[in-house]
Amino acid sequence: MRYFITLSYDGTRYHGWQIQPNGTTVQEQLQTALSTLTRRFTPVVGAGRTDTGVHAGMMVAHFDLPDPLPSDIVYKLNRLLPHDIAVQDVSPVSDDMHARFSAKWRTYHYSFHTKKDPFLDAYSWHVPYQLDFEKMNEAAQILPEYTDFTSFSKTGTDQKTNLCNIREARLKRIAEGRWLFVVTANRFLRGMVRAIVGTLIEVGRGRLTAEDVRRVIEAKDRQRAGESVPARGLSLTDITY
Amino acid sequence: MRYFITLSYDGTRYHGWQIQPNGTTVQEQLQTALSTLTRRFTPVVGAGRTDTGVHAGMMVAHFDLPDPLPSDIVYKLNRLLPHDIAVQDVSPVSDDMHARFSAKWRTYHYSFHTKKDPFLDAYSWHVPYQLDFEKMNEAAQILPEYTDFTSFSKTGTDQKTNLCNIREARLKRIAEGRWLFVVTANRFLRGMVRAIVGTLIEVGRGRLTAEDVRRVIEAKDRQRAGESVPARGLSLTDITY
Repeated sequence: MRYFITLSYDGTRYHGWQIQPNGTTVQEQLQTALSTLTRRFTPVVGAGRTDTGVHAGMMVAHFDLPDPLPSDIVYKLNRLLPHDIAVQDVSPVSDDMHARFSAKWRTYHYSFHTKKDPFLDAYSWHVPYQLDFEKMNEAAQILPEYTDFTSFSKTGTDQKTNLCNIREARLKRIAEGRWLFVVTANRFLRGMVRAIVGTLIEVGRGRLTAEDVRRVIEAKDRQRAGESVPARGLSLTDITY
Repeated sequence: MRYFITLSYDGTRYHGWQIQPNGTTVQEQLQTALSTLTRRFTPVVGAGRTDTGVHAGMMVAHFDLPDPLPSDIVYKLNRLLPHDIAVQDVSPVSDDMHARFSAKWRTYHYSFHTKKDPFLDAYSWHVPYQLDFEKMNEAAQILPEYTDFTSFSKTGTDQKTNLCNIREARLKRIAEGRWLFVVTANRFLRGMVRAIVGTLIEVGRGRLTAEDVRRVIEAKDRQRAGESVPARGLSLTDITY
């Protein structure tokens, strides 16, 4: 029997989602809790990989279990998991559903603020510049016109293609001096959202124009894009199947 | 010339407000930044002392300066101060104003939540129990009837009296499973709010009644009150002069 598990986490303490030899990861924590509870090794497959320090308001993973699900599984998992990982739901799905390959759209939010505020720092990046919201939003809305995002991808990854369909990319003002970049795509390249936001910040500071952003994308060269912004402002917030 | 400085801070990394031999404090950080900027030793006097790990949405301190204030002082202080301390305002006041002694009322908020949520943890305490909101609020509203809070004070402090005038004490529901205890008084004893909230939690769990809370207060004995709740949910949020 296959199950989908929906969870959220504060990524600050983790070396990302994916299990790796050095450093604790969210996948490892979840797999350990689930294996403890089911009393058998229960690997989980996530919808995607978040990088070190990146958060998830919503992550989905699947696992297979021949036995019936323990009762109160959500409650029990939350007791086993550390404070910064919370499970919201565990539900049976059909066997052909796959957390990664069946996912149609993924949405990321990048939060940043221009006025110093100690209480926003954990989940938002403090940008110590004045930014032109209109120009940034204009540049953001160019993104869905393109599909090759080589310029915003980390080099040396094992990605087979650098093609993505961006359905939506826009900037929202949440409050005075608080901003959110919202982007939805079928897939994301490694480091892509943080490189895009870094480039939009350059636009907001008046160092690049929206037209320059077109040239950055068309160059297909990571060197041309802006510097990556810090992980703490980034959160995977939605996955649709 | 005397000045009032208004600031906020995330207390997680600090050994409280007050300068002490071991551990970094907020007062020390502020004093160092101010002394650097004014190029003379500039001690600051705070409106109160927050304990280790306690936050401040609003703290007020005063300092004296014979020279004119540097221009852009708020901006410059914020550049010098670490990310978790932010200055909102610096304004001249009359010489007889004192950040501590002139303060009439202080307000603290204690945040807690009953549903596990990784993104609330920094500033709210996760209480893994079901709580009876009505009963807790009923017990909270008893507090202003009393003035001697010995039962909620840390023992072995240098406080001369344990008398406080509580103007308001009530529980607010912010959202499903998210709660706020709001308390305003002329002064607070050391550890007082966290001991009160610990006692209210006992009421919410059904282990004490509102009448029991009266007996706890009247006993004037710290042993009778509930266990102190963690610092992370506590924030000094207002001071009025």
